[in-house]
Amino acid sequence: MSLYMDHHRKVDGLTADAVAQAHAADEKIQGEFGVKYLNYWFDEASGQVWCLVDAPSIEAAHDVHRKAHGLVADDITPVQQGV
Amino acid sequence: MSLYMDHHRKVDGLTADAVAQAHAADEKIQGEFGVKYLNYWFDEASGQVWCLVDAPSIEAAHDVHRKAHGLVADDITPVQQGV
Repeated sequence: MSLYMDHHRKVDGLTADAVAQAHAADEKIQGEFGVKYLNYWFDEASGQVWCLVDAPSIEAAHDVHRKAHGLVADDITPVQQGV
Repeated sequence: MSLYMDHHRKVDGLTADAVAQAHAADEKIQGEFGVKYLNYWFDEASGQVWCLVDAPSIEAAHDVHRKAHGLVADDITPVQQGV
């Protein structure tokens, strides 16, 4: 498993409720892919979302988003966590 | 206080040790600015860093980086945290 930070550059109509529902949908199915979405941060004004995810691969992380709600990240980067 | 996610697009020569030292330098002086850098994620290969920071303003968050080590973020966005 590796840690990744993804970035959705602009989700149209983003609201706190919508992103919470999308995250819940991720959590519901992520076990099928061996993935764990850990946390996320978002900005309603710009439509940006960052997801921190532990996954066996980039493709597995994308697969969860694709199946759960279709909103695949624009960028995803392997990261180390500082603290 | 507001939560922000910043992004350093490419820090030349980034290493885990270098970013840890920069973060320690932030922590040493951030109280002067009423700022708290909470966590960070980085990728040595691409030189990217994301910092999660609680600050009274965007400028205050930048001021800490500027004074501590000079590496001011390329982007900073007000965010809400999901989990």
